[in-house]
Amino acid sequence: MTTPATTDRPRRICLDARDNVAIVVNSGGLKKGTVFDDGLTLVDDVPQGHKVTLSDVAVGEAVIRYGEILGHAVRPLPKGSWVDEFAIELPEAPALETLPLATRPAPKHEPLEGFTFMGYRNADGSVGTRNILAISESVQCVAGVVDHVVAIIRETLLPKYPNVDDVVGLGHVYGCGVAINAPAAIVPIRTLQNLAQNPNFGGEVLVIGLGCEKLQPERLMPNLSKEDAAANILSLQDERFVGFQAMVDGILEMAEARLKVLNQRRREPCPASALVVGVQCGGSDAFSGVTANPAVGYAADLIVRAGGTVMFSEVTEVRDAVHLLTPRCATEEVGRAMLREMAWYDRYLASGETDRAANPSPGNKKGGLANVVEKALGSIIKSGSSQIGAVLAPGERAVTKGLIYAATPASDFVCGTLQLASGMTVQVFTTGRGTPYGLAAAPVIKVATRTDLAKRWHDLMDIDAGTIATGHETVEEVGWRIFREILDVASGKKPWSDRWGLRNSLALFNPAPVT
Amino acid sequence: MTTPATTDRPRRICLDARDNVAIVVNSGGLKKGTVFDDGLTLVDDVPQGHKVTLSDVAVGEAVIRYGEILGHAVRPLPKGSWVDEFAIELPEAPALETLPLATRPAPKHEPLEGFTFMGYRNADGSVGTRNILAISESVQCVAGVVDHVVAIIRETLLPKYPNVDDVVGLGHVYGCGVAINAPAAIVPIRTLQNLAQNPNFGGEVLVIGLGCEKLQPERLMPNLSKEDAAANILSLQDERFVGFQAMVDGILEMAEARLKVLNQRRREPCPASALVVGVQCGGSDAFSGVTANPAVGYAADLIVRAGGTVMFSEVTEVRDAVHLLTPRCATEEVGRAMLREMAWYDRYLASGETDRAANPSPGNKKGGLANVVEKALGSIIKSGSSQIGAVLAPGERAVTKGLIYAATPASDFVCGTLQLASGMTVQVFTTGRGTPYGLAAAPVIKVATRTDLAKRWHDLMDIDAGTIATGHETVEEVGWRIFREILDVASGKKPWSDRWGLRNSLALFNPAPVT
Repeated sequence: MTTPATTDRPRRICLDARDNVAIVVNSGGLKKGTVFDDGLTLVDDVPQGHKVTLSDVAVGEAVIRYGEILGHAVRPLPKGSWVDEFAIELPEAPALETLPLATRPAPKHEPLEGFTFMGYRNADGSVGTRNILAISESVQCVAGVVDHVVAIIRETLLPKYPNVDDVVGLGHVYGCGVAINAPAAIVPIRTLQNLAQNPNFGGEVLVIGLGCEKLQPERLMPNLSKEDAAANILSLQDERFVGFQAMVDGILEMAEARLKVLNQRRREPCPASALVVGVQCGGSDAFSGVTANPAVGYAADLIVRAGGTVMFSEVTEVRDAVHLLTPRCATEEVGRAMLREMAWYDRYLASGETDRAANPSPGNKKGGLANVVEKALGSIIKSGSSQIGAVLAPGERAVTKGLIYAATPASDFVCGTLQLASGMTVQVFTTGRGTPYGLAAAPVIKVATRTDLAKRWHDLMDIDAGTIATGHETVEEVGWRIFREILDVASGKKPWSDRWGLRNSLALFNPAPVT
Repeated sequence: MTTPATTDRPRRICLDARDNVAIVVNSGGLKKGTVFDDGLTLVDDVPQGHKVTLSDVAVGEAVIRYGEILGHAVRPLPKGSWVDEFAIELPEAPALETLPLATRPAPKHEPLEGFTFMGYRNADGSVGTRNILAISESVQCVAGVVDHVVAIIRETLLPKYPNVDDVVGLGHVYGCGVAINAPAAIVPIRTLQNLAQNPNFGGEVLVIGLGCEKLQPERLMPNLSKEDAAANILSLQDERFVGFQAMVDGILEMAEARLKVLNQRRREPCPASALVVGVQCGGSDAFSGVTANPAVGYAADLIVRAGGTVMFSEVTEVRDAVHLLTPRCATEEVGRAMLREMAWYDRYLASGETDRAANPSPGNKKGGLANVVEKALGSIIKSGSSQIGAVLAPGERAVTKGLIYAATPASDFVCGTLQLASGMTVQVFTTGRGTPYGLAAAPVIKVATRTDLAKRWHDLMDIDAGTIATGHETVEEVGWRIFREILDVASGKKPWSDRWGLRNSLALFNPAPVT
């Protein structure tokens, strides 16, 4: 992959010598009869990103990619065949009980020193990449009022406090009409608690409540005394508010007090070890696992080598590759925590009469991902090669540095919301099909798996990793580009989603019933 | 209750001769030692809206309100005692198998003729109360882009089409990263399908999709051929869009074509039988069941007598009073449908290791509602006295007129979203604690249960039903006021939430797992 490809030459990628399939690189796919340089001849049309057999594969024989079994052939696949999603039978997910835990020695990574970014230091030792006034909400009932006030703050107050980047209402659909005592309610509650503590909000907590809701606002600030918490809460039902304008004025007054504090903050040089980076993929295709995700994995290793924090997530996109992760856990305890999260999710899906095969999406399949095994094998590559030092349940806050597995659903926005709660201050998001994904609370760097997409969405994609497939760049080169982009964006550079102001609302993970 | 009360005179309300408790009316509650006109003396302080015993109640004896058993006393409650939430043991919910179905003869209601409103007639025979351009979304990934375009439309296009009231993006967190083949996925999918058909959108469907999502946009338009559906869909991943601005221009072009059609619509006189009214309560208190809800129930009867449609909802706030509803079902089949919805919800809550006692909220309790039985008995009064002609599963579209039970969670915004999907064009919302609730797709008339609240929130509450408790108005008088307000608002009058522009985002009910 070091010689750049011409447009016309048939080109395929195979990353492991054990593989009996490769994926087609050429834009638009390749026609039946196409002959590769080494003589391999296609016996079917094969779309871009889809798999072609490198040898005859008999019924029942394993189809192997990344050196791993994707499943077994359900029809004969002569050499040069298109391996579509119907050609492979989905295998059982790896049994959790027998997996090796913490068996792989830590890779000998050299520490990486001297890299810094311009961040906002917080009193609790964390470092933000943005300086945002967040207005936390204890219940959805107040969202209309908060939206109204946020618009006023943006127009009339923010110009007076030029060091504050933005004001954001942390809207959600939780807080009342929910089974707040159900066991699984712990997930949305701690997510909201931890969201308010994201380093990008500078520790200036402000909670708008209604008054009668199940999630009493004090619960959003568990680290404060009841008195200190109450000083940061405004409840609309408070009898001192006569009329709507009084509520609005009350919120504006509390908000302005916090803007004054936030406005004192200045960016200062911080070591790369203060970064908390979330990695995620969405709208994936077969290139995700050979271009963008390996490059992100390389960048993740650089951050870990620099002493920083990297979180990877997405349970259903890890489940079928978990046997490759448990050996990488730093201790058996960390390994058991990872198994606990997998088992919890297996049960959660079973309770809804479904399983991990609900993933991948039609677009993933169109992009060449035959099943969730193939998707998972490509997805975990974002984690790089470091030891996994900790595992977080959904919405838990990261308290260690290094590589962390933060268990979340794979749903893009649910995962993003949970990574924000875990303390993420920059996200790196890879996509093959394309998504305009954006978050309000942290900048998102979007990495395209294919140059086609990067060119077409030239003002939405921040990094083109498709150059790896065409041989114009190596994984290492794109990995370093991503690493440098993370430092720049952490220092204030706006990725495309922020330049357009594209931000999706939070999507809270509530596995408990609504009532 | 016909003589208006003075401020100081101790006052209580008891609606049924069988009751052994009454609720205290006086603002601020009444102190121990207070003597009522008939000699009843309080032996405890009793807060406003809370219950006082009218006779000695022994341990194990039933506490009776609305002529129904709220539960049994767990401590002696001498005459004049405060019956707080801890004084009553929650009884079992009514067993579903043995309930009488369709046993009550239909009440002899006179037809009500001659009432009209100024509505927008649709091609399918439905009538809207607003003329709104809705932009439907097949997946949350597109929400940032749709929000961006909606802001442009509001600023630059709407002024050119003055007969169009508003433009609304139907944002939600469904569409991908969800178990779309799980049995319960039918609920969010049909909700989104039916939302787009709300009569307030004039049949001008426009769907923005991404391209790779699980909920393919065509599925949102099940009544159209694949070709006709495709003509109404714009997918951001479509290769004709080079860059973000091209997507924005593409959406603007499709939107303007629909604005031209919508702008031709004019309000015209429509019979009250064309109304589809949803009734709901939120932030309830003990007055809900004696002031606002009875008045709404009276208005509901008026609408049914006029040939219109009224939907009441909220499974957990109906469950403990379902024995009072099944006899009112028009047929045994309707009764069995109601039991089916109750049973489904019992199982849904049990699967999350919880039950209907997760309701009421702390604010409900503070307002005097001791448990979910008392809340339910007060809640169902909104349904009036008509026969129940049909039962809808969550998100199903109403196809009959008259009184309908539309099963939904009690969560305010989940219920509102589902009632919109069922075709609601005006909502009447009662509240005792106070909520600034608003919807973007249909106007909401808010009714206060207490005059205190109506006065304090003078610019958020549309109707004061507290006059019933103080004796200044009868249930019938307030009911007629609500009925006339419904006609006015359906004709274009803006309730307070619309005057302030307070609208909460949709809250989709997804009982299936996310993935």
